[in-house]
Amino acid sequence: MALYVQKYGGTSVGTLERIEAVAERVQLTRAQGHDVVVVVSAMSGETNRLLGMAQQLDPDANRREMDVLVSTGEQVTIALLAIALNKRGCSAVSMTGDQVRIHTDSAYGKARISHIDTEQVQAELGAGKVVVIAGFQGRDAHNAITTLGRGGSDTTAVAVAAAIKADECQIFTDVDGVYTTDPRIEPKARRLSTITFEEMLEMASLGAKVLQIRSVEFAGKYRVPLRVLSSFVDGEGTLITYGGERMEAPLVSGIAFNRNEASLTILGVPDRPTVAAQILNPISDANIDVDMIVQNTLGDGTADFTFTVNRDDYRRARALLEETASELGAACVQGNGEIAKVSIVGVGMWNHPGVARTMFKVLGEEGINMQLISTSEIKISVVIDEKYLELAVRALHAAFGLDNEPHEQPLGNNP
Amino acid sequence: MALYVQKYGGTSVGTLERIEAVAERVQLTRAQGHDVVVVVSAMSGETNRLLGMAQQLDPDANRREMDVLVSTGEQVTIALLAIALNKRGCSAVSMTGDQVRIHTDSAYGKARISHIDTEQVQAELGAGKVVVIAGFQGRDAHNAITTLGRGGSDTTAVAVAAAIKADECQIFTDVDGVYTTDPRIEPKARRLSTITFEEMLEMASLGAKVLQIRSVEFAGKYRVPLRVLSSFVDGEGTLITYGGERMEAPLVSGIAFNRNEASLTILGVPDRPTVAAQILNPISDANIDVDMIVQNTLGDGTADFTFTVNRDDYRRARALLEETASELGAACVQGNGEIAKVSIVGVGMWNHPGVARTMFKVLGEEGINMQLISTSEIKISVVIDEKYLELAVRALHAAFGLDNEPHEQPLGNNP
Repeated sequence: MALYVQKYGGTSVGTLERIEAVAERVQLTRAQGHDVVVVVSAMSGETNRLLGMAQQLDPDANRREMDVLVSTGEQVTIALLAIALNKRGCSAVSMTGDQVRIHTDSAYGKARISHIDTEQVQAELGAGKVVVIAGFQGRDAHNAITTLGRGGSDTTAVAVAAAIKADECQIFTDVDGVYTTDPRIEPKARRLSTITFEEMLEMASLGAKVLQIRSVEFAGKYRVPLRVLSSFVDGEGTLITYGGERMEAPLVSGIAFNRNEASLTILGVPDRPTVAAQILNPISDANIDVDMIVQNTLGDGTADFTFTVNRDDYRRARALLEETASELGAACVQGNGEIAKVSIVGVGMWNHPGVARTMFKVLGEEGINMQLISTSEIKISVVIDEKYLELAVRALHAAFGLDNEPHEQPLGNNP
Repeated sequence: MALYVQKYGGTSVGTLERIEAVAERVQLTRAQGHDVVVVVSAMSGETNRLLGMAQQLDPDANRREMDVLVSTGEQVTIALLAIALNKRGCSAVSMTGDQVRIHTDSAYGKARISHIDTEQVQAELGAGKVVVIAGFQGRDAHNAITTLGRGGSDTTAVAVAAAIKADECQIFTDVDGVYTTDPRIEPKARRLSTITFEEMLEMASLGAKVLQIRSVEFAGKYRVPLRVLSSFVDGEGTLITYGGERMEAPLVSGIAFNRNEASLTILGVPDRPTVAAQILNPISDANIDVDMIVQNTLGDGTADFTFTVNRDDYRRARALLEETASELGAACVQGNGEIAKVSIVGVGMWNHPGVARTMFKVLGEEGINMQLISTSEIKISVVIDEKYLELAVRALHAAFGLDNEPHEQPLGNNP
């Protein structure tokens, strides 16, 4: 008998029929003798419907109130799923983020979880109930509703799993696992039966869209066994492992990419050690995540400084950077919203310096210019013109041998 | 400078344009220097949409979860209105029933308010904010969301007004006041500029639909000055007064009616003093409100006992009554779902015994049979076959002189 946290995303609960299907799966897990906490997202389309109404009233709507608004999406789902479960004789109780006491900071729309009270959840589990928790939401110290930002239901699931020490956190989604790259771009992409935590972190942060980055960080921090699997198709999915569990790691495990970035460059800033902090502090104070950072020293006492942000934050980040530019007496600020990032990821690459050379050669042969390059032990990322994205992904997928036979634990039933 | 509680119902916030119009009215009140707490319902249609989904999953859905579901309706409205107000530069903050701490019992779907914490509301008002509160909802002692039942937003408004000692509680609705009867049935119906609390109580409880009965009870208990007025048309509406403020009360102020009742009769119960309690206790334990009660002793040691309930509760009440019948050894249980109740209401009638005689004569002349009769000092109610309802209302409206000139403080601009 185990304790599972099962998370179902918006597509998995998108209609009443699908909510019934989720109820059936949860009931099955209960029938096998396991305890279950379910974390759900809003029904697909619902969050956009709510955002659309707010947008019509005020394109720059009050952020606290936006969270009050969109958090109703998950609240509807928890109630409907609890109704469906109780109808089946599977005793269930719903809880909002506020009711669980998922404590967060006050960064409305992108709040971070600080801690979770487990008392009431444990009590309901102890009473033999399935606990259905609203993902994506919490409460701050002022008694206000907060949301974790889009995709934040994954984070809720992992954080709850860590807090109640679940045996496994199962993320049910509309894909049946983590692939070597997005199959919509490269049909030869294959599912990985396992992936290391570090690789998953890179894949997620680079826009693989399977799991939200913060949920993977959380999972790693608390070593929560995390499995991604399909709501619609039976299968083992992809298990995220922690260290040393893969005997023969391939050179490159997957090709990740992200269209949703924009780059910002500030030209001619003074070349001194504190300048990076002066540039980036206002950005991070505004809760804008910075991804790649490159500084280029020009030798005349000045430097150019480039970084990328989420495209949604581009306008705000640019305004902040303009202010910093005038404070620093910089030459000018440039921005580019039509870029894409492509990355190769693999724990096997850290001691194979030839990997970078291969990557650059492949892209060069395709005539693709690299605007920024950033490397870590297990990934190499390049920023390119957005229009070359598909070409780059397919070329790299082939070049690193991902098109061919499964490189690890082939499962055979993977379409 | 005064403190107002303004309540806007579902039709008044039914579209984004109407929410803007409400924001404009609230801003106007603020501009006149008043403090404002706004209580809102769900956008019209939303509660039914949510109930419809639950119904599809389970016609007899878990009641706790139903409240989690439907309470999202008001939460959407408070967020949208707060967004619209902030957009106009009118600083506003939303609060759910849970956040205000509107404490209720645990009768999900028809909970009763026990008390309201005003600390946070007062703090926000003190900070110069408009406080936008979700009507219709609260929380119970177990940290669960409750709803007060349909129309309960009025009760929230009055209870909040009492708790924060507001100068006036203004109920904005789609009618411009309380009428002598429903103008859809009798076009000659006229608006009353004032009505006594006692009359209003009878009008509301009898289905005048302008205000929910519990809200009027609350208003009377705490002597909250209560005004009903239109969201769409400027006007003074109808003010509910407390005792002695009307110099020349008319014999009959209005004709109320209610289609939404059903009658239940238990035949041949033992004629002893405790039998009424034995019959009604299981009904009230199930939180079903009983309206009219008539007991008819037969002289053979048995009695017939008839009462009416809300038509929605008919099925449940009948099942409970069948149980009681077998416990008491009663002859049988009969029920009738196709009845209507018509009442004449007026503080002036208590010392005019001729009023009842006139009423019975008028109905008799129209060939309408009275199945039950119940009287109080300020009203006389009769239960009749539902198909005679309109005929009865029009005949009584004419017979008691309500068709003619305004009988009190004519306003002139009343269509």
